[in-house]
Amino acid sequence: MKARVHVTLKNGVLDPQGKAIQHALAALGFDGVDDVRQGKFIELDLAETDKVKAEAAVDEMCRKLLSNTVIENYDIEID
Amino acid sequence: MKARVHVTLKNGVLDPQGKAIQHALAALGFDGVDDVRQGKFIELDLAETDKVKAEAAVDEMCRKLLSNTVIENYDIEID
Repeated sequence: MKARVHVTLKNGVLDPQGKAIQHALAALGFDGVDDVRQGKFIELDLAETDKVKAEAAVDEMCRKLLSNTVIENYDIEID
Repeated sequence: MKARVHVTLKNGVLDPQGKAIQHALAALGFDGVDDVRQGKFIELDLAETDKVKAEAAVDEMCRKLLSNTVIENYDIEID
């Protein structure tokens, strides 16, 4: 079973990496880029075959390791 | 208009960051994680309102800055 996790910075948290991308795009001549936010994307291959159990396990992984819940949100897709 | 870009390592390219996550999960007691791959997730706010033009612009951004097409794939969603 595959899990796809997006870890993104919460609104209001400064994103220097996103700002660096935005400035680099402007320097390359791409106009009209109003904002850039960079997050992480993690794909997991799980041995678990039960969707509910897999989602619960990944949720725990996100809370314990994959995200910093003080400043980040996470979003899980299982398929 | 919003664009969401996923940048992932091509198959066959070593992913030390993913391996580090996999080992850390195992150390935390999460069994049954067969593989982990980490990629980047970039959200762009674009002034462009034409979907086709926005997609073409983001595709060019991916080729010029956001991804290293030698070792990475990218995937664009516009909405």
